[in-house]
Amino acid sequence: MESSNLTEPIDVLEDGKSFLRLVEYIGDDFGIVQSARVSFGQGRKTEEEDFKLIRYLMLHNHMSPFEHIVFKFHVACPLFVRSQWFRHRTWSYNEISRRYTSKNIQFYIPERFRKQDLSNRQGSVFSDEINNDIARNTVKKQTELALNAYNILIEMGIAREHARIVLPQNMYTEFYATVNLRNLFHFIKLRISPEAQWEIRQYAKAILEILEETVPISLDAFKEKHDLK
Amino acid sequence: MESSNLTEPIDVLEDGKSFLRLVEYIGDDFGIVQSARVSFGQGRKTEEEDFKLIRYLMLHNHMSPFEHIVFKFHVACPLFVRSQWFRHRTWSYNEISRRYTSKNIQFYIPERFRKQDLSNRQGSVFSDEINNDIARNTVKKQTELALNAYNILIEMGIAREHARIVLPQNMYTEFYATVNLRNLFHFIKLRISPEAQWEIRQYAKAILEILEETVPISLDAFKEKHDLK
Amino acid sequence: MESSNLTEPIDVLEDGKSFLRLVEYIGDDFGIVQSARVSFGQGRKTEEEDFKLIRYLMLHNHMSPFEHIVFKFHVACPLFVRSQWFRHRTWSYNEISRRYTSKNIQFYIPERFRKQDLSNRQGSVFSDEINNDIARNTVKKQTELALNAYNILIEMGIAREHARIVLPQNMYTEFYATVNLRNLFHFIKLRISPEAQWEIRQYAKAILEILEETVPISLDAFKEKHDLK
Amino acid sequence: MESSNLTEPIDVLEDGKSFLRLVEYIGDDFGIVQSARVSFGQGRKTEEEDFKLIRYLMLHNHMSPFEHIVFKFHVACPLFVRSQWFRHRTWSYNEISRRYTSKNIQFYIPERFRKQDLSNRQGSVFSDEINNDIARNTVKKQTELALNAYNILIEMGIAREHARIVLPQNMYTEFYATVNLRNLFHFIKLRISPEAQWEIRQYAKAILEILEETVPISLDAFKEKHDLK
Repeated sequence: MESSNLTEPIDVLEDGKSFLRLVEYIGDDFGIVQSARVSFGQGRKTEEEDFKLIRYLMLHNHMSPFEHIVFKFHVACPLFVRSQWFRHRTWSYNEISRRYTSKNIQFYIPERFRKQDLSNRQGSVFSDEINNDIARNTVKKQTELALNAYNILIEMGIAREHARIVLPQNMYTEFYATVNLRNLFHFIKLRISPEAQWEIRQYAKAILEILEETVPISLDAFKEKHDLK
Repeated sequence: MESSNLTEPIDVLEDGKSFLRLVEYIGDDFGIVQSARVSFGQGRKTEEEDFKLIRYLMLHNHMSPFEHIVFKFHVACPLFVRSQWFRHRTWSYNEISRRYTSKNIQFYIPERFRKQDLSNRQGSVFSDEINNDIARNTVKKQTELALNAYNILIEMGIAREHARIVLPQNMYTEFYATVNLRNLFHFIKLRISPEAQWEIRQYAKAILEILEETVPISLDAFKEKHDLK
Repeated sequence: MESSNLTEPIDVLEDGKSFLRLVEYIGDDFGIVQSARVSFGQGRKTEEEDFKLIRYLMLHNHMSPFEHIVFKFHVACPLFVRSQWFRHRTWSYNEISRRYTSKNIQFYIPERFRKQDLSNRQGSVFSDEINNDIARNTVKKQTELALNAYNILIEMGIAREHARIVLPQNMYTEFYATVNLRNLFHFIKLRISPEAQWEIRQYAKAILEILEETVPISLDAFKEKHDLK
Repeated sequence: MESSNLTEPIDVLEDGKSFLRLVEYIGDDFGIVQSARVSFGQGRKTEEEDFKLIRYLMLHNHMSPFEHIVFKFHVACPLFVRSQWFRHRTWSYNEISRRYTSKNIQFYIPERFRKQDLSNRQGSVFSDEINNDIARNTVKKQTELALNAYNILIEMGIAREHARIVLPQNMYTEFYATVNLRNLFHFIKLRISPEAQWEIRQYAKAILEILEETVPISLDAFKEKHDLK
């Protein structure tokens, strides 16, 4: 992948509305090694030794050198994904505010719906038993009613911050998000897990693709540690 | 106020569904003084000197001694208030998960709606120009339609995590939240401001009432600093 | 242990100068369960189920409910231990300042010295090959010379903040430190490890004793997870 | 200043041993504007409007957009400066460890000493009343004795982690430190103040020089806000 592609938006949920885009980043695998070696009073060594040191740091939980690598993303995702994302308190966020603007309101309509797993409160699976057409239609129609109610309230002169309260959680939002690699790995570990909701897992996977290009050695060690290979 | 009242739930939005409740707390005005005095190698002094020290710390931005006082709250508020609240990354949160349960779904229906301020994108005011009955009815009806769509999706066997995406942002949520006094003051400063949305301001005011009972000297200094008297 | 003993200072390094003291704390094992159950929209259950839930949370890394339990300690330790301690950025600290006071300057003189492990840069072991009397004497004498130089500088009218720069890293310092149980467990995990320096391990052990009295179920689950039983 | 100069080490304390060096950074004044505008659902505007927006954000304490700009520094400073620096818990640090290496031990010997201000416990001033030659000599000699004691302990086979406890707080240390602009401004505000110790103020000033080159508009707004012009 060339650098020009590296910052192209990825259509994470494949509906033409979602995206994750790498805006910029600082540091690379060598930066981790450089920060770690200051502890020993050492400078650069061979590539092979760099590789071994990164694996050692990862597998022995010496995570502070990974904090000097920083990524800035631009994201569009549904509100319910945003709420899961913003539980991560080590990121920096700036989000579109529906107190400020009524522009460009869009909704996420799933292609396929998941079935409730009855033996596991949190679990869900894709299943042929679900009639996706009916479900999509139900969500779509409900979304249109909500937007309609919103517009009525706006036309009554009601404040945007009040009118928006009828808008559902599949509404798209947009934000900038900056995080260091240590905390990004923590995010991926939690959000790529089968316990996480399908939608946020797609964002975690998109980030993995970006790490493949930017910090391949660290990513390889991370995958080994967490059995993601 | 007696201690027994101190931990009574406060019905913040006066709809019988909202609440803010102090679960427990650690420390008091003297704890701040104690933590601050270790810097000077000093112990307890007179009450008057304690009072002066707290004012000094507050007015000169020496905020670290306020971090040793910690409050745990139990809160029920609408989702849109929760999203503003959780932007504060220095708190600890545990929230009800709509991936786990369909129990007790309720909605916030404002008594009075605010009007969009046309000269200030973020601004809003209560106004006689708004027909509150029509607005309430619009929100209420939309809320019923949303809950209806949710129930249809659930009956189709669709996972709760997916069905909930049609539920609007005036749905109530519930969480435990723990924070130290330094960061609580920061929250109040931002959320009691006239720039903040009316609903979250009511929560900030309810917290002020609790601080009045638990750390009166610190609160007095805080109010003086930020012209809240 | 009775509550009156719970807040007694522990002489961690057994030299009559060191101490770790629990000042106060908020919450207990039940508070963790309470915070966790809000996720499911559930209240209290049987003690056995509480026990199982805490183990489940710990072993599956659902650590947020442990953030609502908070401990405030009062500590006296050598500067080199303090520097290791303060690398933990999730604690709140207030430390005695040698810019403010010359009172009560004391030093840590080890009873027994550790030998450098030649095969492991970071390693050290207690060993009969070390002449502890000579080593103690060397440290003690050097410490006296340092304090003497400090006093000369002070008598010359030099500022305390400048004079103190000759004082060595075995000087005692004192601080208040507040932390939640999630981050306290992280501290213990790192600082009780055989890789940690012997002195800070003693502080980690003293904290373990306190947790035994205050959150026994959580501690038990923590020990099981990290093979500390 | 050219980019090549931007990352040159600055000899902060002018003794040939200290340095502060910008390793790399991400973002600029435009990045702040970009992150802020997402709130309004807006993109790029004119330079003049960018300038006004940055001033507005700074003066109204809307600091989150400043979090997306990140700086990585490489620093050599005395231990007592390091301890003040590491109280800032929002930075990422990797420091040389004297448990790992005995290489390159150096000490800071002040050129001029400050006099204790008798009316202000924390205060100090440069003064002709201080005999700097005697003071320098006292510190230098004490430093040599400490290093000598350290070497004796090392030759006895004692572990580096134990031998180093006799080394004084004017010993140099070295670290990498990464921070976002919001927290960097907070650091500068506290550490450039006349209340801060002279030595750390020099580091804060060196950082200001770097911000002049990298985020001039934000720095200008910051200086205006805090009367640093």
